[in-house]
Amino acid sequence: MPERLVVIGGDAAGMSAASQARKRRGRDRLEIVAFERGHHTSYSACGIPYLVGGVVEEVDALIVRKPEVFREKQQIDVRMRHEVTAIDLDAREVRARDLENERDVVEGFDQLLIATGAKPLRPPIEGSDATGIFGVQVLDDGLAIEQFLETQKPKKAVIVGGGYIGLEMAEALVNRGLEVTLVERDEQPMSTLDPDMGKYVTEALEGLDITVRTGEEVTRFEAENGFVSAVRTEAGRIEAEVVVLGLGARPNTELAESAGVPLGTSGGIKVDRRMQTEVDGVWAAGDCAEKFHLILRKGVAIALGTHANKEGRVAGINLSGGYETFPGVVGTAVTKVCGIEIARTGLTEAEAAESGFEFVTATVDSTTRAGYFPGTMKIKTKMVVERVSGRLLGAQILGQEGAAKRIDVLATALWNRMTVDDMLNMDLGYAPPFAPVWDPVLIAARKAWARVEETIE
Amino acid sequence: MPERLVVIGGDAAGMSAASQARKRRGRDRLEIVAFERGHHTSYSACGIPYLVGGVVEEVDALIVRKPEVFREKQQIDVRMRHEVTAIDLDAREVRARDLENERDVVEGFDQLLIATGAKPLRPPIEGSDATGIFGVQVLDDGLAIEQFLETQKPKKAVIVGGGYIGLEMAEALVNRGLEVTLVERDEQPMSTLDPDMGKYVTEALEGLDITVRTGEEVTRFEAENGFVSAVRTEAGRIEAEVVVLGLGARPNTELAESAGVPLGTSGGIKVDRRMQTEVDGVWAAGDCAEKFHLILRKGVAIALGTHANKEGRVAGINLSGGYETFPGVVGTAVTKVCGIEIARTGLTEAEAAESGFEFVTATVDSTTRAGYFPGTMKIKTKMVVERVSGRLLGAQILGQEGAAKRIDVLATALWNRMTVDDMLNMDLGYAPPFAPVWDPVLIAARKAWARVEETIE
Repeated sequence: MPERLVVIGGDAAGMSAASQARKRRGRDRLEIVAFERGHHTSYSACGIPYLVGGVVEEVDALIVRKPEVFREKQQIDVRMRHEVTAIDLDAREVRARDLENERDVVEGFDQLLIATGAKPLRPPIEGSDATGIFGVQVLDDGLAIEQFLETQKPKKAVIVGGGYIGLEMAEALVNRGLEVTLVERDEQPMSTLDPDMGKYVTEALEGLDITVRTGEEVTRFEAENGFVSAVRTEAGRIEAEVVVLGLGARPNTELAESAGVPLGTSGGIKVDRRMQTEVDGVWAAGDCAEKFHLILRKGVAIALGTHANKEGRVAGINLSGGYETFPGVVGTAVTKVCGIEIARTGLTEAEAAESGFEFVTATVDSTTRAGYFPGTMKIKTKMVVERVSGRLLGAQILGQEGAAKRIDVLATALWNRMTVDDMLNMDLGYAPPFAPVWDPVLIAARKAWARVEETIE
Repeated sequence: MPERLVVIGGDAAGMSAASQARKRRGRDRLEIVAFERGHHTSYSACGIPYLVGGVVEEVDALIVRKPEVFREKQQIDVRMRHEVTAIDLDAREVRARDLENERDVVEGFDQLLIATGAKPLRPPIEGSDATGIFGVQVLDDGLAIEQFLETQKPKKAVIVGGGYIGLEMAEALVNRGLEVTLVERDEQPMSTLDPDMGKYVTEALEGLDITVRTGEEVTRFEAENGFVSAVRTEAGRIEAEVVVLGLGARPNTELAESAGVPLGTSGGIKVDRRMQTEVDGVWAAGDCAEKFHLILRKGVAIALGTHANKEGRVAGINLSGGYETFPGVVGTAVTKVCGIEIARTGLTEAEAAESGFEFVTATVDSTTRAGYFPGTMKIKTKMVVERVSGRLLGAQILGQEGAAKRIDVLATALWNRMTVDDMLNMDLGYAPPFAPVWDPVLIAARKAWARVEETIE
């Protein structure tokens, strides 16, 4: 009899794992059942703001592979609209609710992959249940917003939360012609950047005619006839016909926790480098699983599709008898709001201080191409560097087209525990259409190294 | 009495060194005399094709700092139109010819920096002295072409040599409305790429209405009334009213060699990691100096402005009493021809074979953004990877906008001697406007690792 793999969650992590497992083991050696609560498999959740903004026109464009393709081409028994409600580790079976037919099914497993994703943070704000208030978590959320915009034609939008999703949704709604206000509890949006970088994000948003209200906490939503009509903060009242919540997310671990699968200190499911939980034959991958942060040297919770895909691949190889490891993350993230590109990797100044590092910082302004080359754009690079050793701890980039992906060099440097004096002579690509003769990344390394030297003298 | 530094060559390497030295030592501690044969200091030679093509409008845009600025702001005694004709290592002095006033001057030195640049390769082809045949080496060459195009208004151009300069000049002349033929001796242009990648460059050039003639050697230039009229090759005759030679360059070392400063096996001046030659107090930097190739583990000659700047900085710090090293290069280069971006780093397949490496290769097609994101472009990545160990040896990228600078991640990986299995999980920036969920670089690493594994089984 073939072994049995049950996958909980049919998006990036779950289906990457299922595909890898199938690639390594045919149907006669492995049966695969995958449960998905929603209406879609393997889609790009990161694409939702672009669907809402009309940048991507068809929802199908965001779907990498449909359930029927998994069934037909890969013999993966995908059960859509099935919500797993319990895992029994002793009996080695899961119980799932068939949401369409309102009945329960029970499936046994030899190997179990938990890929339940993330759960949006929803502080208990009065009036949250009004129509017109949306989260942005799964593709169904995106479609719901889309439909609301089309049928209700709201003119005034409030975005609550100035993180990645908040910013991308702000751009989306501006693109659709709405009047947008962004409300952020912290002093700057993008609290994953240091405030000295975040202030330029505020300026950029204001340049796009987005009203930015920082240092304001939402206290209540007002509604008329069940439809949201305003957002109340400590500082006042903002009219709103549609509200988008972008307050972050945490690992969705209730199911794992109830079953007795241990969590890590970050709140994500604790996994080893092979993505196995502390329970034999039970694996976790994606937003629900804890990631090891290679600079902080501890577990963190980061919800990001690229990690989910990689972890799913690693889990799938291991649970089907192979050997592969996922070493961890360095906290890289990129986004854009209209023409403004934002990137970070490693630790911010605030994170470095909190973790007890002794460090210096350096910030430099440069251009994406040779200064004289048409289309050259501004780029600001900040580095956080360990004192004395000169080891890179983190970097942030703000700029226009061609700026953000330079973070990859810095992420690769972090991955290799490089010092800035080793970085500053690196042989990066140079030609006038692509970089100044000293690439901005190298200029920043040069300045950071000078700072390190100053602190020694 | 202050020490005396003499610099031979007033472009990137020479003036970077002079500036660094001045930064560390004031006029009372260091006198600096710099000789420059031409009319310009510190300019971007890499920008010449863009000046000729009209992409950059003013020649001044290419000049980073003028002689009078060096004189006034940095107290560097820059002598323009002075060609150094001899170095006397025993007397520790140089003799220079003042080209304007036709007289010789002699200057003593304590420290000497040789930054004589590169010399274009000019095989002895009959008829090379006809008017309308140009090299592209120094800014004066660019201005001469510019003037010829404006006064003679040629319609038909032939580019001899399909390397970086050849391609960039082809683009420049197409931009100016000329009918362009490119003649290349090898089977593909861009012989710094493997032929399987180079063939796409040929296709791209043909798509731009450039006639590409490969495997053809130029045998003779024909002239009428002293003006070039045609290029003869083994295969035929090509009408030409202007000819640009892009046949590469070699280190310009005659002066150093005559003086007894030893050269390396590559033909460049032999230097240590601090850029000192084998003669005490005599330094070399830029195109004339040999570079250590970190993958080949031997000296190479590569003419590139970004190396010249870095080496000049290192030489300048050391010759003024500091300590800094230039570790070497990995052979990174990027260029573009209209919409086509071309990049390489490390070893090509051919170079790896020639050096005796055992290797596998992997080539993947992907996109620069999420596949569904507007403006996503094609990108083809080839990797050369050591067998068994999986260590990256080199990579080549061809693609459209957003492709080429991804080479920097690969250059950084080479710098750190990474293996592709360590690379494939790297935490690179992901968001739909910037990359697919698996960045093209990571997809290539994944495929290369699979190839490595296959060769073990």
